[in-house]
Amino acid sequence: MTNSESQPPIAESEVFGQVCAMADDAAAAQRRLAQANTADKNSLLLAIADALDARADEIAGANALDMQAAFEEGMDAGKLDRLKFDVARVADAANGVRHVASLTDPVGEIVRGYNLENGVRLQQVRVPIGVIGMIYEARPNVTVDVASLAIKSGNAALLRGGHAAERTNAATLHIIHDVLEDMRFDPALVDTVDAFGRAGANAMMEARGHIDVLVPRGGAGLIQSVVRNSKVPVIETGAGNVHIYVDRSADLVKAIPVILNAKTQRVGVCNAAEKLVVHRDVAESFLPMIAQALANENVVLHADETSYRIIDEAKIRKIQLLEATDADWDTEYLALEMGVRVVDSLDEAIDHINRHSTGHTESILSEDYAAIEEFTKRVDSAVVMVNASTRFTDGGVFGFGAELGISTQKMHARGPMGLAEMTTTKWIGYGTGQVRK
Amino acid sequence: MTNSESQPPIAESEVFGQVCAMADDAAAAQRRLAQANTADKNSLLLAIADALDARADEIAGANALDMQAAFEEGMDAGKLDRLKFDVARVADAANGVRHVASLTDPVGEIVRGYNLENGVRLQQVRVPIGVIGMIYEARPNVTVDVASLAIKSGNAALLRGGHAAERTNAATLHIIHDVLEDMRFDPALVDTVDAFGRAGANAMMEARGHIDVLVPRGGAGLIQSVVRNSKVPVIETGAGNVHIYVDRSADLVKAIPVILNAKTQRVGVCNAAEKLVVHRDVAESFLPMIAQALANENVVLHADETSYRIIDEAKIRKIQLLEATDADWDTEYLALEMGVRVVDSLDEAIDHINRHSTGHTESILSEDYAAIEEFTKRVDSAVVMVNASTRFTDGGVFGFGAELGISTQKMHARGPMGLAEMTTTKWIGYGTGQVRK
Repeated sequence: MTNSESQPPIAESEVFGQVCAMADDAAAAQRRLAQANTADKNSLLLAIADALDARADEIAGANALDMQAAFEEGMDAGKLDRLKFDVARVADAANGVRHVASLTDPVGEIVRGYNLENGVRLQQVRVPIGVIGMIYEARPNVTVDVASLAIKSGNAALLRGGHAAERTNAATLHIIHDVLEDMRFDPALVDTVDAFGRAGANAMMEARGHIDVLVPRGGAGLIQSVVRNSKVPVIETGAGNVHIYVDRSADLVKAIPVILNAKTQRVGVCNAAEKLVVHRDVAESFLPMIAQALANENVVLHADETSYRIIDEAKIRKIQLLEATDADWDTEYLALEMGVRVVDSLDEAIDHINRHSTGHTESILSEDYAAIEEFTKRVDSAVVMVNASTRFTDGGVFGFGAELGISTQKMHARGPMGLAEMTTTKWIGYGTGQVRK
Repeated sequence: MTNSESQPPIAESEVFGQVCAMADDAAAAQRRLAQANTADKNSLLLAIADALDARADEIAGANALDMQAAFEEGMDAGKLDRLKFDVARVADAANGVRHVASLTDPVGEIVRGYNLENGVRLQQVRVPIGVIGMIYEARPNVTVDVASLAIKSGNAALLRGGHAAERTNAATLHIIHDVLEDMRFDPALVDTVDAFGRAGANAMMEARGHIDVLVPRGGAGLIQSVVRNSKVPVIETGAGNVHIYVDRSADLVKAIPVILNAKTQRVGVCNAAEKLVVHRDVAESFLPMIAQALANENVVLHADETSYRIIDEAKIRKIQLLEATDADWDTEYLALEMGVRVVDSLDEAIDHINRHSTGHTESILSEDYAAIEEFTKRVDSAVVMVNASTRFTDGGVFGFGAELGISTQKMHARGPMGLAEMTTTKWIGYGTGQVRK
């Protein structure tokens, strides 16, 4: 039973005070961690990984209770799958921690360095941000990912996981706290406000000056609520109305597996393709092929007038074909559904994408140099793929070990966020008595 | 006469609609500018510089009217000086534009690049942010600085200058618009909402989704108002409660000119020193020397108990010595005043600075390697100087040509903001049909 159920509710203002105090404790712990050298941080991470492996059954047991409760409350299969944190997934997470330990420490990296005319030796150096707040839904692996990235990058993390995963997150944090104490680090480095329930998340959003940055990770509703309400600086993540554009020059045979992968390899994730945009010159030949391939995978198509006609006339087996509405172009289905649109030109494709995309990931399938240059330059998204699946937009795939989330904003970080994105910089100028003239 | 005086006031909602439309026009112009190559942007900048020189008397004439009106309204001498934009200062600004033209274009710089295991060739590339909003007080040179930095970095700028500088800014923008039109660029690239008065600034703060980032530049009141009220992401700038710490190991003779320069070379600027923190071991020998030097420059000292006693007993000529209050430690005087405090240790100095600093700039005067390492690592400010004046924290000094402002926040940019800080990045992945397994 969690605190939020067993204890009487606490007044909002009192929660705010307690959450600020936790953040200030985290900040004090972070200032000490910032002085630790890389070897010490890596030893800590490897010890956490080993402890997660050794005590995986504790986490899996807590998770089984969360899963049972969520099932009884009618959670859908996709969310239940993301909530699942069994021994095998804990082992994966532990290996993720080991991967983070193996990465280069971002702290101390000199981003730029040069001498001023007067001889002052100037360096722009990466330093930790401070206290990173994370508000996320029921994905227990995020707890481990964020804890490991925060420690490696010299930051503290204050977490609010989804209610459905509270037992799992508590068991995971219990193990991490044991290791922190064993190795004489401050347990306040990674802590949770879950005990305060939803009031804890609200307090985090108010805690400007105590929490340095807040990252929401989960559904569009959660993210928009945090973006709109937080007084703490927010990094907006996640929503992905992802497009694949099939150019007139595309290799149509190569295009099919890429589109199938982007749409169906995993649905319900932000880098899954949601829209297929096809150049008119190849629509008649390509649409029947891709429609059949998608129909075989039970993908429902929301087709514009031209593509509807072409697909309808092709008499595809098992096709589920609907007429697209205006709303479709802005919808992230997160399901086996896809919008299909025919465009007259590359220009029209780019304009359509820039108008309707959430700025996450788009892909062009093309063999034409000029078209690829235009598309990659003008499409205004965090990631633009060329002849590759959109599913590659991922911190793990990019080599970051884990990810804090995928930023769809332009400030501070854009795209998958790993260790470097969890730092800021400091300028240091080494002089010998210089004054300004 | 400006529009805000000659026309009836427009309803707030109508102003909001018009400002959003201006921002959208700026965004459209920016998308075209983003495709311009560096040579074209540089030609444009050089033409603007030449036009500013050729028509400097137009600007100076408008400025004389602004200066006269401000003087009659009782503006103080410091602000009047910042408002002044005579022919000589316009020439300086034009040379700043030429300097920006000479800098490397940040757009297209590959920040990171590597191949994924599957052969996808991944590149993180600098791209413009989009529409940069600027709300600033009566400093007409900012209009030229921001316009030139925005153009070079491929961005559009939407400006709200201070009411007192409206004629000067209008004359400056008139020239910039003429050049943009002559060279077939869109005048919407650099525009002002000054015609809407204060309602224009409010509309900019509401224009989330239309303006990408808002930078306030001016007094603490202006900045905090924008930080608190803006729905558009803000980069906080400016406030500088700047400390100089004199370590026990400092070269005391070298220390005096550095402190004098930091405090008196220009008062009323954010990188001027406001506090002097002195190690106890050198307080008795150093404080009388520096107090005499500061007294000679008419600097009023707000001294803590220990430093008050030492300075008082030294019978300094012309000294203006006050007992410091608690409020002094958090006060940015922006005047010939300085807080003085004696500390028992380096630790106490660092703790005091991290508690009271605004995170702008601090300096340590020391010849001790270990003390310098501790100070530069643990002091949590945008810029930390070693044996050098705090007055060097400046985009021009850092070699940025001009500056958008000095960020005192940790997200996105920290310290002086130049061209690189006006970009975001985009990941581009070049593949040959890769799918995720």
